[in-house]
Amino acid sequence: MATIVSLTTDFGNKDSFAGSMKGALLKINPDAQIVDISHEVGPQDIWEAAFTLKTAYHYFPKGTIHLAVVDPGVGSGRRPIIVVTESYFFVGPDNGIFSLIYQEAERIRVHHITASHYFLPSPGPTCHGRDIFAPVAAWLAKGIPSGNFGEEIDDYVKMNVPVAKQSPNGIDGHVVHIDRFGNAITNITYKDLQALAPEGTSPGPVTLTVAGKEIKGLKQFYSEAASGEPGAVINSSGYIEIFIFKQSARTTLSIKRGEAVKLTLQPK
Amino acid sequence: MATIVSLTTDFGNKDSFAGSMKGALLKINPDAQIVDISHEVGPQDIWEAAFTLKTAYHYFPKGTIHLAVVDPGVGSGRRPIIVVTESYFFVGPDNGIFSLIYQEAERIRVHHITASHYFLPSPGPTCHGRDIFAPVAAWLAKGIPSGNFGEEIDDYVKMNVPVAKQSPNGIDGHVVHIDRFGNAITNITYKDLQALAPEGTSPGPVTLTVAGKEIKGLKQFYSEAASGEPGAVINSSGYIEIFIFKQSARTTLSIKRGEAVKLTLQPK
Amino acid sequence: MATIVSLTTDFGNKDSFAGSMKGALLKINPDAQIVDISHEVGPQDIWEAAFTLKTAYHYFPKGTIHLAVVDPGVGSGRRPIIVVTESYFFVGPDNGIFSLIYQEAERIRVHHITASHYFLPSPGPTCHGRDIFAPVAAWLAKGIPSGNFGEEIDDYVKMNVPVAKQSPNGIDGHVVHIDRFGNAITNITYKDLQALAPEGTSPGPVTLTVAGKEIKGLKQFYSEAASGEPGAVINSSGYIEIFIFKQSARTTLSIKRGEAVKLTLQPK
Repeated sequence: MATIVSLTTDFGNKDSFAGSMKGALLKINPDAQIVDISHEVGPQDIWEAAFTLKTAYHYFPKGTIHLAVVDPGVGSGRRPIIVVTESYFFVGPDNGIFSLIYQEAERIRVHHITASHYFLPSPGPTCHGRDIFAPVAAWLAKGIPSGNFGEEIDDYVKMNVPVAKQSPNGIDGHVVHIDRFGNAITNITYKDLQALAPEGTSPGPVTLTVAGKEIKGLKQFYSEAASGEPGAVINSSGYIEIFIFKQSARTTLSIKRGEAVKLTLQPK
Repeated sequence: MATIVSLTTDFGNKDSFAGSMKGALLKINPDAQIVDISHEVGPQDIWEAAFTLKTAYHYFPKGTIHLAVVDPGVGSGRRPIIVVTESYFFVGPDNGIFSLIYQEAERIRVHHITASHYFLPSPGPTCHGRDIFAPVAAWLAKGIPSGNFGEEIDDYVKMNVPVAKQSPNGIDGHVVHIDRFGNAITNITYKDLQALAPEGTSPGPVTLTVAGKEIKGLKQFYSEAASGEPGAVINSSGYIEIFIFKQSARTTLSIKRGEAVKLTLQPK
Repeated sequence: MATIVSLTTDFGNKDSFAGSMKGALLKINPDAQIVDISHEVGPQDIWEAAFTLKTAYHYFPKGTIHLAVVDPGVGSGRRPIIVVTESYFFVGPDNGIFSLIYQEAERIRVHHITASHYFLPSPGPTCHGRDIFAPVAAWLAKGIPSGNFGEEIDDYVKMNVPVAKQSPNGIDGHVVHIDRFGNAITNITYKDLQALAPEGTSPGPVTLTVAGKEIKGLKQFYSEAASGEPGAVINSSGYIEIFIFKQSARTTLSIKRGEAVKLTLQPK
């Protein structure tokens, strides 16, 4: 059965970067099955790559190799790594791009890729996606054990991940991503919300305050809100998401990534 | 032989929506062959999805499963459906997205998808593409009969499709799509045009009036027009299309979707 | 083993053009493995397609069929062709799109595609990508010899390719591409640079002058430059590339394609 290699990069869909990477991968392993997650991650936006990968990786079959390349430090001292979890492999730069994987996975092994005989010879040092990461993923998909690529390390880079915090009467969180529809995804989860109520009870209705606006209650789905009215839902990744039905919350509410979001329980 | 699953959505190529959907599909059916038609349909633009699918679906091999998700009503009462025609399957929301298929296909069966044991468990109700439609397509591609997913229905939703009408001296139509190049595709077909002339004869030269401009005659191909001059061709889907060679008719003529287009026969 | 067909077009990822082309290809040859290089080449920008293809094609496995369609002259007299090199096939319009292949490949055979029984019947003459080039690629991938599609020709179209020239104290070149990151790729190669020094010696530090700015020396990698400071590297295709670390050289320096770039050796 073909091994799947997923791709998450900031290479864009316009230039030949992603195509060259796919060619390099298939030249070594023509049986690999390549699946794009995104090549439109914002340029050099490591957080966005981490978030994009985190919301997608676990939907893939066990054994999938997730290749992720947003790599402003390419060519410098930053290390190329393989991350091995119980179900997946991750290949990319050691710049924090896998931080959200480290949080979720139970048992992790991280290898510093040093076995340069697996690399492509390169006329310049600016494209490790094509010359290092794609070949390593191709050989991994052929069954080469991760240990063959380099020593295990434990000082791999972890980003500072913004977490939601309990406040006296609710939760203080942030907008961590804005999607194509202009929906603002927060880092407040359904679990965070449930933790506010005594076990076995429901937390009751909430108010969200963001960008000077108050949003009362959670909707079950988008079209429950009137057109033009701000609403909030538990989205399909389990996060509270702020939206405006058939409009963009980003533009209408002028919300940016990093914006504070205050959740409070409505008085009973 | 691998079954092809084509994808037409408004998920965009930036977020992980399309990638997650592909992962979910391959997790159930690793042999499915996924082919993107478009993930860049305008947000919530059901008509554009319908048009995009209609111009592409029949080029695919018999047996292809066409998955289409533009779904503003996700999570509400709108039904998930499978449409079965003589040559293809279609999977998506019952919101009119398959209206142009209903017009063209000879024998149609529509099933309301209710067999929720085929769905993915979801932490929130906002992504049926990944949690319902992709799994159903994956199981269909594995050979599960369409009837196993739910009862046949006949009150499925049909959009109001804009049709071109014969006028005293020609045809009144509309711009129904504007493509990447800024070309304006009308709903006036080559057949409509031929119907203006007595059988066995040719309708003779035409004039198109759109956005206050007159375009005389039809070109055989784009480069027959001078640069900067508006022209019209029968395009590769059989529709009359208004273009400006090496420029954008959209911006140069300020044409929008919905714009009226008047075709008149030139006096003999 | 599946034959790979790569795609490089200006069809965009929004409309159904690329999807229809893939469907048409797979209908004839369901075993072909389609890999996108880019569908976001600038509309009618033959040079950009040529450059995109040139930086990617040689990373693909031997035997890959590279289909490239940027085709403003579609439907006119311009010929459809197959280019056969020692390792690859190329299929597309004879409008210069393969000029950079002609420069690099050792032995070339070019066939004028005339065997119209391989084409799809088309209701209009505007989409040879779907109706001629995809079917021809599909049949080629099935093993039909290139000679079966038409006679060999030797008057195929070559674009005027901008070349860097030695000047009294350096090299005069141009910006030939600007990538997603806003990096400006020149046509000055590492080899050009080395040719400035007597054999066995190094040319020493250089100064680049572009858009009124002087850039001193070459960096080894992007992050060697300070944020906001213009720098230059030998990129991963062997060309000198002008960048601004974590910013866009295009917008910050107002560089356009075609911009003159002057490389001079710094006085010893």
